Amino acid sequence: MEPVRPLPQYLAQRYHGWYATTFAENRSWYRRLADEGQRPRAMVVSCCDSRVHVTSIFGAEQGEFFIHRNIANLVPPYEPDGDRHGTSAAVEYAVSYLRVAHIIVLGHSRCGGVQGCYDMCSGKAPELDEKTSFIGRWMDILRPGFERLPEGDEATRKLALEHEAIRVSLENLMTFPFIRDAVKDDRLSLHGLYNDIAEGGLWTLEPRTDEFVPV
Amino acid sequence: MEPVRPLPQYLAQRYHGWYATTFAENRSWYRRLADEGQRPRAMVVSCCDSRVHVTSIFGAEQGEFFIHRNIANLVPPYEPDGDRHGTSAAVEYAVSYLRVAHIIVLGHSRCGGVQGCYDMCSGKAPELDEKTSFIGRWMDILRPGFERLPEGDEATRKLALEHEAIRVSLENLMTFPFIRDAVKDDRLSLHGLYNDIAEGGLWTLEPRTDEFVPV
Amino acid sequence: MEPVRPLPQYLAQRYHGWYATTFAENRSWYRRLADEGQRPRAMVVSCCDSRVHVTSIFGAEQGEFFIHRNIANLVPPYEPDGDRHGTSAAVEYAVSYLRVAHIIVLGHSRCGGVQGCYDMCSGKAPELDEKTSFIGRWMDILRPGFERLPEGDEATRKLALEHEAIRVSLENLMTFPFIRDAVKDDRLSLHGLYNDIAEGGLWTLEPRTDEFVPV
Amino acid sequence: MEPVRPLPQYLAQRYHGWYATTFAENRSWYRRLADEGQRPRAMVVSCCDSRVHVTSIFGAEQGEFFIHRNIANLVPPYEPDGDRHGTSAAVEYAVSYLRVAHIIVLGHSRCGGVQGCYDMCSGKAPELDEKTSFIGRWMDILRPGFERLPEGDEATRKLALEHEAIRVSLENLMTFPFIRDAVKDDRLSLHGLYNDIAEGGLWTLEPRTDEFVPV
Repeated sequence: MEPVRPLPQYLAQRYHGWYATTFAENRSWYRRLADEGQRPRAMVVSCCDSRVHVTSIFGAEQGEFFIHRNIANLVPPYEPDGDRHGTSAAVEYAVSYLRVAHIIVLGHSRCGGVQGCYDMCSGKAPELDEKTSFIGRWMDILRPGFERLPEGDEATRKLALEHEAIRVSLENLMTFPFIRDAVKDDRLSLHGLYNDIAEGGLWTLEPRTDEFVPV
Repeated sequence: MEPVRPLPQYLAQRYHGWYATTFAENRSWYRRLADEGQRPRAMVVSCCDSRVHVTSIFGAEQGEFFIHRNIANLVPPYEPDGDRHGTSAAVEYAVSYLRVAHIIVLGHSRCGGVQGCYDMCSGKAPELDEKTSFIGRWMDILRPGFERLPEGDEATRKLALEHEAIRVSLENLMTFPFIRDAVKDDRLSLHGLYNDIAEGGLWTLEPRTDEFVPV
Repeated sequence: MEPVRPLPQYLAQRYHGWYATTFAENRSWYRRLADEGQRPRAMVVSCCDSRVHVTSIFGAEQGEFFIHRNIANLVPPYEPDGDRHGTSAAVEYAVSYLRVAHIIVLGHSRCGGVQGCYDMCSGKAPELDEKTSFIGRWMDILRPGFERLPEGDEATRKLALEHEAIRVSLENLMTFPFIRDAVKDDRLSLHGLYNDIAEGGLWTLEPRTDEFVPV
Repeated sequence: MEPVRPLPQYLAQRYHGWYATTFAENRSWYRRLADEGQRPRAMVVSCCDSRVHVTSIFGAEQGEFFIHRNIANLVPPYEPDGDRHGTSAAVEYAVSYLRVAHIIVLGHSRCGGVQGCYDMCSGKAPELDEKTSFIGRWMDILRPGFERLPEGDEATRKLALEHEAIRVSLENLMTFPFIRDAVKDDRLSLHGLYNDIAEGGLWTLEPRTDEFVPV
């Protein structure tokens, strides 16, 4: 079989439905967005997980959010070493070119990436420790979060690590000079959010207490 | 000001609206998705651009698509060098853990990242050539696409480069051993799509001709 | 002639077309559905009528809906008397084993079964009153709906009886203990829909007013 | 919460897409079908299982097939005892009123109902033996099929029982006088089909050998 194939028919049908309804209703706005360029108010960094629907939760319309999604919504620290850094490129584009007013890091419950990090750091997933594991090397970003976990039972520690994935990313964002400058000039603010996918809960990181409180 | 601040009120309000309607309607299904884990049928690699709405175009519901979004929907080649590769980690998770049946690379018109690559490769954006430019280093992935552009006017060449961003990503996907194996075993197929955001058009890469045709 | 014969050729041809296209496109997903079992989000109870296409209306893909179809989309009341109750078995399987999140009762216009019930209850179809009439005995389920029809002309009363077929089924569903429990625990919700096959209209039962309103 | 609720929004959206495309394309035909009544060529008895898509496999258009779906595609024997027999009512309506030319019993692999029958008859599912088990009492229809299973390993016997679900239904169909008459007059033929959902295979019961052969 060819590796590359045409779009499966069921998705083609859904597209035609979208075109005849949502697109038809919004044609003039979409044209303006195309002609004048995007002007998103916020960047969202969220997880690839199929159960996290930032556009649904925030009723997001086309043009509103610049969205980067990766495993476990992680931002690495600033490392201008000439290598490929997809997340850093996305952050740079959002802040330096699009001049978004907010960066929202959105974590979530039952995160497979965080689970992998927990297992790896606990010595229970040696395959993730290997140099060739892309997931393992990516989740290394969260190791500092694992190391400062409080004692406790496993469920508590895993939830704490999901929270740490958000805190570590926010800390790493502040290592980028262009972000520090934008924050200092009050052109940009950062936000940490946690979504409980089973209960639909949304929690925001309260900077004074460094705790997550319900929105 | 604190760099980290609570969620802006307008987003909190939208969330409360979502919770009272969409979440309330689907509570039991979302709980099952949380308890039993996700089982997405496809992975989508699309751009962070706020005007590209894969979930809207495909009427995607929670649980259906594993979505990675980065600048210009690029996939780098396989490089298991122990460095951080967020896109490769997402692809590895989708194929090796979630065993998705499809990977869809979704490109789009008026892509700022592709424009940057075009300018950089044409010598018109020296700042992107610098080692410290995350965007420039990320867009290096697309250089092989630029080099094989046909002669022609600028508009034609830019459209061709947007198409190349999809082809290059599909080629790079095939450099990952676990993807080659899954394709060979007929467990996975790859798909290239192009969305014209002004006209709402959707084009699929036809493997026999290597051209994009309307869906 | 043998009563049992091989598949007519025109259907064999259609199957071969499906196998070469739809199945080939979705082979890996269908295999996963087979290996891992179904996890449908909703059960649909609809009529056998060839003009009611629930999979088409909802763009349903393999794996999405557990579909029971009988004459006039009726659900009988809970009667655990040891007799054969095919509809009750389907409901039990959907709720207790598959744990669907929704049961949708989908009625429709020009329903032959409802027409038969109307004629029978009006004394115009004595053959349906006979003990040996399977259709008549099945449509007895809808008698309570006929008895509460408002006065009016025949067309209005027949439409009202089609609506009653949906209401009676929803009421009967709530006589099943396992459904009452699932509804009480917020694991299950019930939905009444009416499809006008000539005009393509879809109406949903609004619980506060007990009236059907356009979707 | 109210047990009955309006249609979930994601299904409303899909409906609107269908209305704007499929319905719009076929409006005049759907109106004729509504005005002149259905005239289906065949009745299909298939399983409720979400993975069995008779309309997809046969490219079925609105108006073509009168479809009854129940657990394990079973037809009970003729029992005109005045009780409610939903399947018998559907068969009666198809043959006596709609005068279909074919009845197709479509079974499938990995059938949960057949599995339940196998377990029950093997003494491994005492809960299905209880009088109050709707599934158990429904699957009693297949007991004669279990009793004539050949010796062999479990996988072979389960596949054989899935085949028996089709044979038993065809045999039971022939106990209905109006079916015997229609078959004798060559107005009706019966067909047994088996669908392997993992491999997309379709098998037809060959009456001379009483074996299933690929279509």
